Amino acid sequence: MSDAIDYFTEAHSVDAVNARMGSETDARLATVMASLVKHLHAFVKDVELTQDEWGFAIDFLTRTGHMCDENRQEFILLSDTLGVSMLVDAINNRRPSGATENTVLGPFHLDGAPTYPMGANISLDGKGERCLFEGRVVDRNGDPIEGAKIDVWCDNADGFYDVQQPDVQPAFNNRGVFTTGADGSYHFKGIRPVAYPIPDDGPVGKMLAALGRHPNRPAHMHFLVTAPGYEQIVTHTFVAGDEWLTSDAVFGVKASLIASMKPVEDGDTQWKSTFDFVLTEAG
Amino acid sequence: MSDAIDYFTEAHSVDAVNARMGSETDARLATVMASLVKHLHAFVKDVELTQDEWGFAIDFLTRTGHMCDENRQEFILLSDTLGVSMLVDAINNRRPSGATENTVLGPFHLDGAPTYPMGANISLDGKGERCLFEGRVVDRNGDPIEGAKIDVWCDNADGFYDVQQPDVQPAFNNRGVFTTGADGSYHFKGIRPVAYPIPDDGPVGKMLAALGRHPNRPAHMHFLVTAPGYEQIVTHTFVAGDEWLTSDAVFGVKASLIASMKPVEDGDTQWKSTFDFVLTEAG
Repeated sequence: MSDAIDYFTEAHSVDAVNARMGSETDARLATVMASLVKHLHAFVKDVELTQDEWGFAIDFLTRTGHMCDENRQEFILLSDTLGVSMLVDAINNRRPSGATENTVLGPFHLDGAPTYPMGANISLDGKGERCLFEGRVVDRNGDPIEGAKIDVWCDNADGFYDVQQPDVQPAFNNRGVFTTGADGSYHFKGIRPVAYPIPDDGPVGKMLAALGRHPNRPAHMHFLVTAPGYEQIVTHTFVAGDEWLTSDAVFGVKASLIASMKPVEDGDTQWKSTFDFVLTEAG
Repeated sequence: MSDAIDYFTEAHSVDAVNARMGSETDARLATVMASLVKHLHAFVKDVELTQDEWGFAIDFLTRTGHMCDENRQEFILLSDTLGVSMLVDAINNRRPSGATENTVLGPFHLDGAPTYPMGANISLDGKGERCLFEGRVVDRNGDPIEGAKIDVWCDNADGFYDVQQPDVQPAFNNRGVFTTGADGSYHFKGIRPVAYPIPDDGPVGKMLAALGRHPNRPAHMHFLVTAPGYEQIVTHTFVAGDEWLTSDAVFGVKASLIASMKPVEDGDTQWKSTFDFVLTEAG
């Protein structure tokens, strides 16, 4: 028996681990795990990780796990802040030029938000600066898409989603679903979204602080746009001019997703944000 | 402002994340985190991780964290079974040729084990096949080292360490500390260690099963050998001929650490295991 095959050595560490996989292992699992081991070992070797650093990593992961419950997902925050969530999103949602780009879903989407007629107001708590959101849903030729569902959600004027404040905000505050007509246009009222920090009282917040990073996300409106025959879009529109646009804690901003935010005077409406969604044919 | 610098893209994902680190970040932390992000993103790109796989990974890490408590460290098991623990051990304990090699400490070492006179019996529960452990502690010239402390521990005949069965086994069962005299030799009685599975009722056990791997470790005696002026050795001796020698679930086996296990007839002693420890001068 040869050392290189049977026993673990620093030089052959990757092969030593990956050679153990059984021949009946699911092919995709085998591919993913072999790559994970290869890159994980390359990291440890590159930095020559010390025993103390390894111990810190074990403790960090344990604390991160203990922070997770039905209301808090600290591992998603870790993935978000290391750019992994956006990378997975990018890889799985490559679009042709001109089509609206995806960004992360985030943890605050709810199924079953109220369906409203076009023009309705989704702000139920009466707080915040009134804003009209408007635009069109079109295909890549610029032709309107009828029957597109636009599912929207954002934080309230204090920077919290309704699900984060179930005792304070009305259910489905700042959420709603709209459906386009024959001209593909949409418009609804809400509030100008505000910037907010991701939860930073856990291990991920400590990590950001140690790296000299802030926990803030630039103000944004979430959109989930679906239409029969087209690829779903999960995205945000970001408020132009927000101070955190170029340093979003979770790397969600793309230049193409920055939407105008213009002052208007129309009754109690103070702002108007315009954004067109360009959908790609499915398949 | 340029997309490549300010906004996350698939192509520039690593730079987008690492450029966020503040200039005041501890230099070592910056090096470790930049490398971690680089290798983590390379893994995600290599396998083009799907959204479902990412979700599975988040859930796996969460379940692993929830499995950890004061008696169970599932993240260490994960590190062990992916070869990371042994890799960190190897990197931090490179030794000159001929010196005894390290292996992982494992989770079962206790400070404060009883100090015994040479020749004492560490088996307190009266179970198992009696075994004499003997050998010498020497320097790289083969000269004896006087005053070397030999801290040993192993499982009992049922494959459990005393700390795993506090209600069943006597405290410090199969543990003891011995000190060499002028001739550098040691000998003590115990039992022939037995192979045992690592705890496999958690997420790591499920992972091993999915990869077609067993959870077993070959039979071994743990040794922590220290002497003034010499580098500490944390290692095991493995029972020659054990069926799991070439497939240790945690990759702890090195060819140089396999110790002879010979039958003897000497009162109630049935086996003899001989191993010499070669220490490296400190510094």
